[in-house]
Amino acid sequence: MPRRAVLPAGVSSASFARALAQLSKVVGSGHVLTDREALLPYEKLMLAAPADEYAPSGAILAATVEQVQGVLAVCNKYRVPLWPISTGRNFGYGGALPATRGQLILDLKRMDRILDVDPVLSTALVEPGVTYQQLHDHIAERNLPLWLDFPGGGPLVGPLGNTLERGTGSTPYADHFAHACGMEVVLADGRILRTGMGSLPGTHSWQAYRYGYGPHLDGLFTQSNFAVVTKLGLWLMPAPASYRTILVQYSDDSALERAVDTIRPLRLAGTIANPCALSNAGLALTAYMRRAELYQNGGAIPDNVVLAAARQHGIDAWNLTFTLYGTVEQIAPNLEIVTRAFEMSGGRVDPDYHDPSQVNELNLEAFRLLDWVGGGGLVWLDPVSAARGADAARQRDIARSVLGRHGFDYLAAPTVYGRDLHHLIALVFDHGDPQALQRARTAFRELAAAFLHNGYGLCRTGIDYMTALANAYGDVNVAVNRAIKHALDPNGILAPGKAGIR
Amino acid sequence: MPRRAVLPAGVSSASFARALAQLSKVVGSGHVLTDREALLPYEKLMLAAPADEYAPSGAILAATVEQVQGVLAVCNKYRVPLWPISTGRNFGYGGALPATRGQLILDLKRMDRILDVDPVLSTALVEPGVTYQQLHDHIAERNLPLWLDFPGGGPLVGPLGNTLERGTGSTPYADHFAHACGMEVVLADGRILRTGMGSLPGTHSWQAYRYGYGPHLDGLFTQSNFAVVTKLGLWLMPAPASYRTILVQYSDDSALERAVDTIRPLRLAGTIANPCALSNAGLALTAYMRRAELYQNGGAIPDNVVLAAARQHGIDAWNLTFTLYGTVEQIAPNLEIVTRAFEMSGGRVDPDYHDPSQVNELNLEAFRLLDWVGGGGLVWLDPVSAARGADAARQRDIARSVLGRHGFDYLAAPTVYGRDLHHLIALVFDHGDPQALQRARTAFRELAAAFLHNGYGLCRTGIDYMTALANAYGDVNVAVNRAIKHALDPNGILAPGKAGIR
Repeated sequence: MPRRAVLPAGVSSASFARALAQLSKVVGSGHVLTDREALLPYEKLMLAAPADEYAPSGAILAATVEQVQGVLAVCNKYRVPLWPISTGRNFGYGGALPATRGQLILDLKRMDRILDVDPVLSTALVEPGVTYQQLHDHIAERNLPLWLDFPGGGPLVGPLGNTLERGTGSTPYADHFAHACGMEVVLADGRILRTGMGSLPGTHSWQAYRYGYGPHLDGLFTQSNFAVVTKLGLWLMPAPASYRTILVQYSDDSALERAVDTIRPLRLAGTIANPCALSNAGLALTAYMRRAELYQNGGAIPDNVVLAAARQHGIDAWNLTFTLYGTVEQIAPNLEIVTRAFEMSGGRVDPDYHDPSQVNELNLEAFRLLDWVGGGGLVWLDPVSAARGADAARQRDIARSVLGRHGFDYLAAPTVYGRDLHHLIALVFDHGDPQALQRARTAFRELAAAFLHNGYGLCRTGIDYMTALANAYGDVNVAVNRAIKHALDPNGILAPGKAGIR
Repeated sequence: MPRRAVLPAGVSSASFARALAQLSKVVGSGHVLTDREALLPYEKLMLAAPADEYAPSGAILAATVEQVQGVLAVCNKYRVPLWPISTGRNFGYGGALPATRGQLILDLKRMDRILDVDPVLSTALVEPGVTYQQLHDHIAERNLPLWLDFPGGGPLVGPLGNTLERGTGSTPYADHFAHACGMEVVLADGRILRTGMGSLPGTHSWQAYRYGYGPHLDGLFTQSNFAVVTKLGLWLMPAPASYRTILVQYSDDSALERAVDTIRPLRLAGTIANPCALSNAGLALTAYMRRAELYQNGGAIPDNVVLAAARQHGIDAWNLTFTLYGTVEQIAPNLEIVTRAFEMSGGRVDPDYHDPSQVNELNLEAFRLLDWVGGGGLVWLDPVSAARGADAARQRDIARSVLGRHGFDYLAAPTVYGRDLHHLIALVFDHGDPQALQRARTAFRELAAAFLHNGYGLCRTGIDYMTALANAYGDVNVAVNRAIKHALDPNGILAPGKAGIR
């Protein structure tokens, strides 16, 4: 007997069986998964939380917008909660699993059509299941001069899901939501809304102009559960004439402040057009060795041990890479300006570096981080501050102190996007070791709380912390989201708990 | 006896009197205006519509957020509709007047504090009544290296109102909403929501990071009536090291297509960082002469007459200006690239032009347009297309044909913002002449309908066309806006009819 999945909360076994039978008619019985074995691929949870707390009630694989509408009708009828995913690889934030136990995963990976790539306007229109790899291949096959901006998950993940989570990348198009243009969403009642210019009959500018007329709604459908997004327009970066990637390194930990204060005006002037990630020695070292090769004692690895090992691999205390794009003539004066500025701040400048993610080369480098301890546990924290050196240093001190207390290394990349800095921190641990899991869970919660206590809000979080984080942004924010939720999804069937919204 | 203002729809005279008495307690009786004489300043309507159709029931001048809350409480109690304005100078779209007859204007011009200007982050936080002139003066007094981007109304209007209308300017920060960061809004029930990072206790990044956590709500409060916005964060452009404004001119009308197709890749590559407005001969000529000096016959002025007069003032068929910003060394290669590209497209390039709006110089130049015929009538149309030459030419042909049929000159500035082109068209007429008003009204409606029929949606419109335009974007769009409206303003007291939302 195959083990059956958990029942949705408040739904009887008989009622759920009827719902599943009707869902089978909508998507075909082969696309309704309820056996625990069949659901295992969805249950890989990199978070510091036991997957069982977020066990799904099944997965429905819809292939068309009409099937999504059909699924919504059934789920509304039986009040079955539905957790939409696109590629389902929200690494370090919860993967494919729902924010509460007992939801049906609405898996949209079969909706994987690239509906348009326009080389004149540098735009694309994609479905949820399209991956960056697929889009990259499509562009390469047509030999189009277009570049992609992708997050750490690179080839495995997709632009629709990453944009809805407000993910970021490494080129001038790093703010994915800011470079999205036009959505098609299926509302809970099955009606189809196209945002921006998309709902105007005969429009030619759905992917050209974001706002349309009237309230600009697209932001509503990011980090939320108000509808199912089935198409997303993207702006793509025209391939630059050439580029040059620069590595800047600082030898001492205290240089972080100076580095951030040097980067900010260069970013705001546009001299540097892409985000500036300052990898610390620990994070950079994870690309070269495993933790156990370096250190077997308890507690976090002492900084001097990390730094000594890092230097053997050409890594220093802070390691910044960014890229100048344009013609050789356009790059030359920018290179002069940045070289002067970073040298004045005490950095060593290498103007001939290579960073694949900044130059349209899909890669799996981010996954080396998982080998640092092994066991597949990973949680990201992204506390935001203004792009001020003093704030970055304060965040570093908070992180080091809390993580150290729980025996975790400080693996971080404070990243200046513009006026904002996201202090990206990785918590890696062996998910199979219950003690390590518990330790990571405690450390994560303490660290997140410490950041919030100091006014540094996380801008994204895993399924186990969504409600806590949403609540930190205040009662009125919670109430407004809830009011909109009720207006657009009165039965509350779409992804309850997502971003803390019920 | 002073004439009394019109009653709000569905509110009895006695009930309105009670409401006004309570409003006097909230804001002080001197700040409750109901005499028609006192309301005259609000009733200047540049639109092609008689002001009387949009007559207000009075004006309430609130000075604080607490007063706004108090006003909302009274208006909810008596179901009095409330039309919030900031500086109230929405020139060419309706000025200060409400979208339906019989609303109380909530005038926020007394809320005119500049709450913060941060020269390190290049940000500001302002109240509704702050004008660009005031902000400019503040920055000049403190001698801060910060530039403003402002719309045609320049010194007279303000960043909060213009941003909420999704207005645009002339520098790299032209998309005002995209450069806004953080709002404070008072909901209809009086609760205060701060968006983005603003609702996080102790935050330091309200003006640094736009999104916060959870759905990004800011877009909801643009071109809508869901709340009263009482504070707005702004990103300001760091003053560039230097700049160089370029004029490109084309002699023949058919060059429009080539010009747009030349601009687009330069804008997308970032070689040109600000919008590229192509003023036609007619629009450019309005800065130099009055229509009657040139032509006294009926109908639109023949193109050859316009062009001959224009050339006497150094104007040609199409006149493009844009600016290169940066150090002299950064500008040099860009100047070479753009010169080569525009010369290849048949343009004449003058690399030493001056355009005040592109270089932080507030000015009233846009108002010269009103003198073309005199009488203060002005309507703007902004049909959007993708930034393709063929679309710009098609829009031009539509405009010329419809306007010509009604005896109006084609005065236009097709403007490439990025992937989008807004074909800005001015309809100027004598508002005091009933026949001219009626002719303008008919021409406007025919032209707007012709654009919509061809898939070119307007991105902004006057109070007399809001419902028609909103409906053109489809039933689902209307229904979603209405559902959100009902959720956030159940009594529908805020600006009924704004953006077609009731």
